[in-house]
This record gives sequence, structure tokens and C-alpha cells, in this order.
Amino acid sequence: MGSLETERTTTGWAARDPSGFLSPYTYALRNTGPEDVFIKVTCCGICHTDIHQTKNDLGMSNYPMVPGHEVVGEVVEVGSDVTKFRVGEVVGVGCVVGCCRGCRPCDTDNEQYCLKKIWSYNDVYTDGKPTQGGFAGSMVVDQKFVVKIPDGMNPEQAAPLLCAGVTVYSPLRHFGLMGSGLRGGVLGLGGVGHMGVQIAKAMGHHVTVISSSDKKRVEALEHLGADEYLVSSDTEGMQKAAESLDYIIDTVPVFHPLEPYIALLKLDGKLILTGVINTPLQFVSPMIMLGRKSITGSFIGSMKETEEILNFCKEKNLSSMIEVVKMDYINTAMERLEKNDVRYRFVVDVAGSKLDL
Amino acid sequence: MGSLETERTTTGWAARDPSGFLSPYTYALRNTGPEDVFIKVTCCGICHTDIHQTKNDLGMSNYPMVPGHEVVGEVVEVGSDVTKFRVGEVVGVGCVVGCCRGCRPCDTDNEQYCLKKIWSYNDVYTDGKPTQGGFAGSMVVDQKFVVKIPDGMNPEQAAPLLCAGVTVYSPLRHFGLMGSGLRGGVLGLGGVGHMGVQIAKAMGHHVTVISSSDKKRVEALEHLGADEYLVSSDTEGMQKAAESLDYIIDTVPVFHPLEPYIALLKLDGKLILTGVINTPLQFVSPMIMLGRKSITGSFIGSMKETEEILNFCKEKNLSSMIEVVKMDYINTAMERLEKNDVRYRFVVDVAGSKLDL
Repeated sequence: MGSLETERTTTGWAARDPSGFLSPYTYALRNTGPEDVFIKVTCCGICHTDIHQTKNDLGMSNYPMVPGHEVVGEVVEVGSDVTKFRVGEVVGVGCVVGCCRGCRPCDTDNEQYCLKKIWSYNDVYTDGKPTQGGFAGSMVVDQKFVVKIPDGMNPEQAAPLLCAGVTVYSPLRHFGLMGSGLRGGVLGLGGVGHMGVQIAKAMGHHVTVISSSDKKRVEALEHLGADEYLVSSDTEGMQKAAESLDYIIDTVPVFHPLEPYIALLKLDGKLILTGVINTPLQFVSPMIMLGRKSITGSFIGSMKETEEILNFCKEKNLSSMIEVVKMDYINTAMERLEKNDVRYRFVVDVAGSKLDL
Repeated sequence: MGSLETERTTTGWAARDPSGFLSPYTYALRNTGPEDVFIKVTCCGICHTDIHQTKNDLGMSNYPMVPGHEVVGEVVEVGSDVTKFRVGEVVGVGCVVGCCRGCRPCDTDNEQYCLKKIWSYNDVYTDGKPTQGGFAGSMVVDQKFVVKIPDGMNPEQAAPLLCAGVTVYSPLRHFGLMGSGLRGGVLGLGGVGHMGVQIAKAMGHHVTVISSSDKKRVEALEHLGADEYLVSSDTEGMQKAAESLDYIIDTVPVFHPLEPYIALLKLDGKLILTGVINTPLQFVSPMIMLGRKSITGSFIGSMKETEEILNFCKEKNLSSMIEVVKMDYINTAMERLEKNDVRYRFVVDVAGSKLDL
């Protein structure tokens, strides 16, 4: 009867083809290995990358695919070598669930850049089976890729920190942009952007939100605490702000011109791309050269940085602003997210949803 | 008769229109002001930017224009407040001859990035007169923008260090890429590239020259001391070299795809653009994000860095490889430079040329 044990299953919501439409899907989970943590999923945030992946925008999708990489859950079982976690603890899982552990990125706490990293979903695990994400009842994850959610933090609000939060925190930390007094820009006010404003403000920065329309002005300035709000089509305002920013966190996940934003950067300023865009972006070399500016990018953050941002948010009393939905709303939520119609992140209440309809 | 004194003239070779054809042109020089150094030009290197400027490739050219910004000459007269230089000394002048002295770049020894900097030619000086460059008998230059050429350094070989040399040195210094053991790439083996190989080797780097053809393999490996030579169309070689370089100094001054070179960079690697290109360059965001790579650029270097590279080259016994020509060959030289037909820099022997034909 041991074979029954290896056939432990869970039900998630999977895309079956590039329509991206999600529906219930039951699949096997591996047994809890010595280093594994078996997690009952509480909730999971919806990231724009989930749309790219389920719709095969990047041409690398395999189906059925259960997306979701902002996962908060409760530890149900731990492997024999697991020392970091105990049954009953609230933990989080992000975009990555494996790495080679032997390369330079792995050796320097940059495992998110390991060329052999294993994505939380739409990838193949070391056992040869597909990985599946957090829009599901349970997950089994190596303890290296599990973080503790600080005591007292709301699980739904914690979920977006695991991707959106660390996506902002990691480049600010890496590029030496944590000091107070810096002038930062946040381009785009979605899931990543709204955390960007709060995190940068908590670091003591002067923060300008740059947006394509005036729609989010009040929210940016009054709810999120931004110092300035700039509409990118306002030529005069953009010109006034030229050469004024130390960095811009560019969260826009679709094609957009870069030059108007490069122009806002000071000498040595950095345009930090955080959105996966499958259309080539453009710039002219003198705009970069004549101010020693950089176009760079950053991909989520390390597990260490994920722990740090959770503790930073706890300490500074920051939280994500979310709309909590049930699983049967997920297809509508993804449609609305694609239209940027959410303030600012959808989080699916997985534990409170009926998964198998 | 004082008015005669203000009418001191010199003869240079000027472009008159976007054909870029140079011919003798006599113009007034300002009197030697308190901070000025009056310099008799010995020689002047030809940079690719001279072609862009004389041909109005950047749409900002004013004529008549005497190009030339790699100028070595002898001090003939100094102003009353000049303390750094004495008559008879050998000095150099680069791309910039003025700055505001009050902005952040000026206050931090980055005056080449001052938004009010004054270019050596094709610009307007504080007296309202056009600036004119080094393909001329004499120049009058503010002492701040004059450097001493180290004793014993050949003037013709020193000239290219004032632009090509410091263009490589400055970003390596600024971006913390001076340590030995780094793996660097030099894309394009022209005036800047050939100094790049030598300077990077002298810093103890492993240097790969990347070129569009096999033509310069022997020169790169045997004459300049590069460690490896990679042809960009060699798919297999490029693939083998993927994720191997800490930086690439991209010296190509015309449009080229960036992605093949971004792919060669390691985690946190930097593609450093040094060529002014008037066509937009392209890249896709995941290539940058998934390795936290940077596309950046650098513009010549500060006066401090110009002094440093001259002393570095003197100390390490490095010199530029040049073809010395007379002024009456300058139009042919510029045609040949445009076809990259020079090993590696033309330097005009100005003092040894008949300037007024």
C-alpha cells in the first residue's frame, strides 16, 4: 500500500493552453523528503508574470500549469533534516524552489540568478516532475526556498511581499540605494509599484510616482505617501524634473519608451527594470553616456532578501494593499489585472475557496 | 594698436559644411586671460567623433568647424593666475574646455558630465565666440582643462590617451573594475579598443577582443596582448563564452545589436558603451533582469582621470599605436578612419605641417 503514499495529490487551478483560462486540476505531490516542507496553502497573490506564463507570452509554457508564486501557507509536515521550520508555522514561498548550490550566484546568496534555478511553476523539479505553483491546496518545497512569515503579519498582506515587495527591495539594497535623502522614481503604480513607493518612503527617500495618466494621483500622494506625481505625457512637468532622480524603479510589464525616463535621471542614475517584457526596448547611446546612466534590471530577490523585506515591512509597519478574492474569481481577476484594474494586488484566499468545484 | 593684439589669429583646418571636407581657415584667438594657457599645437589625434561632428551626424554642427580634441602642444604663454604650467612645458587638451564649476558633477571631479560643459570645438565659449579644436596652429585654453604630459612621453603617442585612453580608463575606475583577475571584453579594435586591451591587460585582467571579423586576430593576440579573440558571427564560440565576462567596453560607434554581447556577461556584468551612436539600440528586458546586468556608458573622463591615465601609461610603459600623417592628408585619413582602415589611430603632425597651403 506504500504506493498510495507516493500518490498524495492536491487540487490546484491550472491553465491548459495559451488561452490562459484556469480550471481545477488534480495532480500528485512528491512525498516530504528530508529537506522538504509540506505546506497547506492559505493564500496566493496574482502577479503579472502569471498572465505572461499562462498565456505563453514568453513562448516557454508547458500545460497543465498551476501558476502562483506569492504563496503563504501553514507548515503541515517537515522532513527529517528540516531545522528551520516547525509544524503549524506560517511560511512563504516565492518564484524559485531550487538552484544548483554550486555556482557563483548560489555561493554569494544570489541564488535567484543561478542559471539552473527551478521556478515555482512551469519548470521541472529534480525528480523529473513538473513544478506547480500556489493556486493549489498544498505544495512541497525545499526548506531553502521557504521563509518564515513574521508573527502577527496578515497572511494575505504578506503574500505580495514575496514577489512584489522583494522585487523592489533587492535592487535598492544591491545598488546601494538604501540611504535616506535619495530621490527615487517609481514608474507604474501596480502591485510592484505600490510596494515600491512605500518601501522607498520608509527608507527616507523623496519619491516621485510617474504614471501614464492622472488617475492615480490622489492614491499615490495621499494613500501611499509619495512626494510627487508626474504624468509622462506632461511635457513641461517632465522637463522640469529632468536630471533630478537617483533611480527609477520601472515596473511597467509591457513595451514603453525608455528615453523620457532616462532623461529624469541624474548623473550616475539608474533605470531599474523589473517587468518582463517580450518586445525589444530602445534607447540612444548619448543619453546614457553623457550622464553615465545605467539601464539595469533586477529579478525578485534572494531568500535572504526575502526574509529581510518581510522583517523590514513588519518593523516599519508597511503592508500591501490588496483585493482578496476566492478561487472561482481568478479568471476574472487575471482579466482585470491585465487592464491594471486592481488596487494594487489580487490575493486569492485559497484556504477559504472550494478548489475542486 | 591694442586692437591688433586682440586680433591674434591662428590657422586651422575647418569643415565648412556637412560634406566634412577640411581646408585651411584662419580665425582669431582670444588673448591669454589670467587663467589661460596659450598653446602651440604639436600634434592632434583623429577620433571617430570628429567625423560625426564635421558631417553633422548628430544634427548639432556649426561651421566653419575646426575639429580635433586629442591635442598635445607646448606652452607658449601663461596667464597671470596660472600656477600649474610654465612656458615650454608639454601639455594636453581633450574634449572639454569649460564647465560651470557649481553643479554636482563639477563639485565631484566629474566636470565632463556638467550640463554646461563647453566642448573643445563646435561650441560657444564664455566670450560668445565659437570654440575651435586642435587641427590648428594654436589654442588658448583655461588651465583647468590642460594636463601635463609626463616627461619623456612621445607627444604623438600621448595624444590618443587624451580621449581614447581616458575613455577606457574612466569607466573601469568608476565602476570598480580596476582589480586584477577580472575578465573583460573589448568590442571593436579601433582607437579606443586598442587602448582598452592594453589598459585592461596592465590592470591584470583576462581580456577577450570581440570583433566582427577574423582580420585582427593576430594583432589582438600578438601585438596587443589580448588573451582571447572572439568573432561575433561564430555562434559556437559566442555560446561557449556566454556568462563569462565581468564587463565589455563597447567601442563600436555605429549601430549594432547588443544582445549577443549582453549574453557574454556574468551576473552583474556591465556593457559599457563609449561610442556615440545616433540610431536607437535595442535589447529585451529579461536578458538584463535575469542576470542583473547593466547597459551603461561613459563619456571620456575627468581632468583628474586624464592625469591618472597619462601617469598610468607612463608607469606601465603603455603607448598608443598610431599612424602619423601631415595635415594635407587629413581628409584621406578621415575617409580611411570611417572604413576602420587604420592601426589604430591617426595622429596629425600639426607642427610639422604647412597649415595655410
